[in-house]
Amino acid sequence: MADARAILAGYRASIDNIDAALIHMLAERFRCTKAVGVLKAEHGLPPADPAREQQQIARLRQLANDAHLDPDFAEKFLNFVVREVIRHHEQIAAANGAAKAG
Amino acid sequence: MADARAILAGYRASIDNIDAALIHMLAERFRCTKAVGVLKAEHGLPPADPAREQQQIARLRQLANDAHLDPDFAEKFLNFVVREVIRHHEQIAAANGAAKAG
Repeated sequence: MADARAILAGYRASIDNIDAALIHMLAERFRCTKAVGVLKAEHGLPPADPAREQQQIARLRQLANDAHLDPDFAEKFLNFVVREVIRHHEQIAAANGAAKAG
Repeated sequence: MADARAILAGYRASIDNIDAALIHMLAERFRCTKAVGVLKAEHGLPPADPAREQQQIARLRQLANDAHLDPDFAEKFLNFVVREVIRHHEQIAAANGAAKAG
């Protein structure tokens, strides 16, 4: 049992390192998508791009397959992240509208 | 507008690289948590550990703050991932039960 707890502590140290990497990757991803939101708002580009989104889903499912991650989970994960991106873009658009109105 | 599209393509290349990193980090995280699930099932360790979970939430919120990521999003993300971990652990427990019954 002492051995099992030591092994568990080892796995948890890995999980903590991976979580730190995930948080920093997500922060960087949102830095990029916020910049995209500003660019689209400034240049009147359409906020949604269904063709790009379909490509992203297909690519992430393939990457997940290769990495032995459930492709359905990868797609759910992308949808989870994209919902947050849309929230940010709505905030950017609202701030832009307020700036123009102000 | 041509410039805006070139800048957009650059951001998208970064987003695609980050997504590949995220998928691989998630795959590795689930490799660890599946090993934890097997370890806990084999050694009769309790599946849930509320103290550990509280530490993880507090740590991820702090990491998110430092990385300029919304801490509420970081907590939602952890919950999203943990729901998948629980699903895997239930599968492991069911497979263990089936093996013992068989």
